[in-house]
Amino acid sequence: MSKLLMFEKPVGMRDTLPHIYETKRKLKEAAEQEMGSWGYRFIETPALEYYETVGDASAILDRQLFKLLDQEGNTLVLRPDMTAPIARVAAAKLLKERVPLRLAYSASVYRAQQREGGRAAEFEQIGVEMIGDNTISADAEVIALLVSVMKKSGLEKFQISLGHIRFTDELFRQILGTEERSEQLRRFLYEKNYVGYREHVKSLPLSSIDKQRLLQFLALSGGIGCLDEAVKLIEGSAGSEALDELKTVYERLKEYNVDQYVTFDLPLVSHMSYYTGLVFEVYAEGVGAPVGNGGRYDDLLEKFGHPAGATGFGLRVDFLLEALEKLEDEAGIHCVLFSNERRVEAIQEAQKRREAGECVLLQDVAGVKDVDKFTESCKSVTFFVGKSSNGGEG
Amino acid sequence: MSKLLMFEKPVGMRDTLPHIYETKRKLKEAAEQEMGSWGYRFIETPALEYYETVGDASAILDRQLFKLLDQEGNTLVLRPDMTAPIARVAAAKLLKERVPLRLAYSASVYRAQQREGGRAAEFEQIGVEMIGDNTISADAEVIALLVSVMKKSGLEKFQISLGHIRFTDELFRQILGTEERSEQLRRFLYEKNYVGYREHVKSLPLSSIDKQRLLQFLALSGGIGCLDEAVKLIEGSAGSEALDELKTVYERLKEYNVDQYVTFDLPLVSHMSYYTGLVFEVYAEGVGAPVGNGGRYDDLLEKFGHPAGATGFGLRVDFLLEALEKLEDEAGIHCVLFSNERRVEAIQEAQKRREAGECVLLQDVAGVKDVDKFTESCKSVTFFVGKSSNGGEG
Repeated sequence: MSKLLMFEKPVGMRDTLPHIYETKRKLKEAAEQEMGSWGYRFIETPALEYYETVGDASAILDRQLFKLLDQEGNTLVLRPDMTAPIARVAAAKLLKERVPLRLAYSASVYRAQQREGGRAAEFEQIGVEMIGDNTISADAEVIALLVSVMKKSGLEKFQISLGHIRFTDELFRQILGTEERSEQLRRFLYEKNYVGYREHVKSLPLSSIDKQRLLQFLALSGGIGCLDEAVKLIEGSAGSEALDELKTVYERLKEYNVDQYVTFDLPLVSHMSYYTGLVFEVYAEGVGAPVGNGGRYDDLLEKFGHPAGATGFGLRVDFLLEALEKLEDEAGIHCVLFSNERRVEAIQEAQKRREAGECVLLQDVAGVKDVDKFTESCKSVTFFVGKSSNGGEG
Repeated sequence: MSKLLMFEKPVGMRDTLPHIYETKRKLKEAAEQEMGSWGYRFIETPALEYYETVGDASAILDRQLFKLLDQEGNTLVLRPDMTAPIARVAAAKLLKERVPLRLAYSASVYRAQQREGGRAAEFEQIGVEMIGDNTISADAEVIALLVSVMKKSGLEKFQISLGHIRFTDELFRQILGTEERSEQLRRFLYEKNYVGYREHVKSLPLSSIDKQRLLQFLALSGGIGCLDEAVKLIEGSAGSEALDELKTVYERLKEYNVDQYVTFDLPLVSHMSYYTGLVFEVYAEGVGAPVGNGGRYDDLLEKFGHPAGATGFGLRVDFLLEALEKLEDEAGIHCVLFSNERRVEAIQEAQKRREAGECVLLQDVAGVKDVDKFTESCKSVTFFVGKSSNGGEG
């Protein structure tokens, strides 16, 4: 461990400077407003949770958790996602009030990075959870809301890829037989390592027909037509019921008039192990990773003692900002500079203009070394300096 | 360590449920708006910082820090305050752009609690830092802004107590001679343990005149008149210069027309050891602890390699909420319930009304077990159920 310089920050930690803050504030405000107008109510949960409860339920890899010990020897974690904490609150309190429950959040989550490689260890997520509604209407609403939130946030060029956990599970079970083998193959999928997947499939002790099925599966993405191809790869009802759900949700999304944002991606597998049905990822033009994801998780609430189906999505605020084509201009600041003799006039001028809605910075000239540099980014500059009683516009 | 129940949270950690969230959101919005209109620009810093840098500079007791280790063996801390992180960013980047620098923040800070005694281990602070301006105008602006922020946040019944670190330091130095002895006495003051202070003073090997001075010091609070009493207790110029600063800032606050919120409290000593001049605390009716505090800290920036005077304040959002007499009502939610046959009509109705600014929850009746309970808190209920094509108001 070498001596740190005073300005250094831990790996993956970021500062947000004013103009980015302003852009982010507006984006979040628009998104929150839209979630609220669909009847979702915001809650907050603490940054620290017990490892034994939320940490364990969160489905984030153990080495990505920030852990610490409390006085009693319990392990705490910085929350790695918001879905598990919200499940905790819903199960403990809110599901007694009203079911289905529509909740929303806007919060930072924490995932330790092994080294500084441009990946954030703290990032903000904004999202919703709909808890206690097992209808396909709930899944459709969540995706339609996602589209609406993206658009209200100023994004138009994005795509949602839909898959279904039970289709993949059933196909792998039919061909591979064991959960261990399925898990191996799923890992290639969630790492999006398709070359690795293909090579692994070729190395498996399977008939050439089954190998072919696994390879064809990889190509099942695009328009609604790929669902007809998918049904040919699978036997029995479990897989085709999953495909029917995908078709139905797509029909519903047409009714919301948002189907143009949706494509299918059957090999889509989430790194979040709690998903049990429909899953999706959101891609925005210009951003190399999904800006958000979501899906149905019907087993998580049970861990918190209150079985209930649920569906939801989370968006990464940092990636949404990346997708925005331009940053907000900073609000123009009007400068009022004064010297001691005309201080009172200057204070009154600033107060009057702030009340009228202007953003007015009031500055004693004695506190500024370089007035030109200080005022260069100001929208206007007014001087109350010297003995005259007329303010001069600069 | 006993087995935890799934709904348990770590000591001092809180959930914020929807109606409190809504009240807090409005309070913070009003406060942020006001800070922005005085020309303060918001920044964010990471939740985790190095112990060696910000942790060490933060002046929060070591046992109150949440600490963890990173992969390289560096100790990280959850930020215990915002002033030190902002000093880091200002010194590393922003002071190169513009001086004086007006920055604002709204963020959670973390202070470990030894046991669950009602004290929050995570709480939000909202505040400003004015960096690089050593004039008394800067101190006055910060206090005037504080008053304005309190009022815009919906609070009218509050009081700001002003003291001065250099007056106390000088008085103690003159009477006690050593820093160790001064520090002992200061501890009684920042614990507000006046009984302990008196007993300790009586036990000191001092002349009865000096003991009397230390006891009289304790009574120096109230209106501007107490500054005249204060000057009698001290010799030389250092102490009286501090008193002059207090007088001057009070005159300036009259010019801002906020002097009615200000009283003096010379024995005021902060637990934050970085203050070097004027210090203050804010008390609101109905809250047992200060809702905020602030003051001048001219030596902190130097620790980050960029010497500059600074002044600022921070308010505790949880205490401000306590001081508010009532919570915001939750925004009224209109419910639209539908059955499958009339789904499309219902979707269109909801979309139309959301576009018109209403908050509309759309719910498939198949997803609700108890419709009466589900809709009981709704502002209105509209049913699109059955085969009729006329929506019925419920």
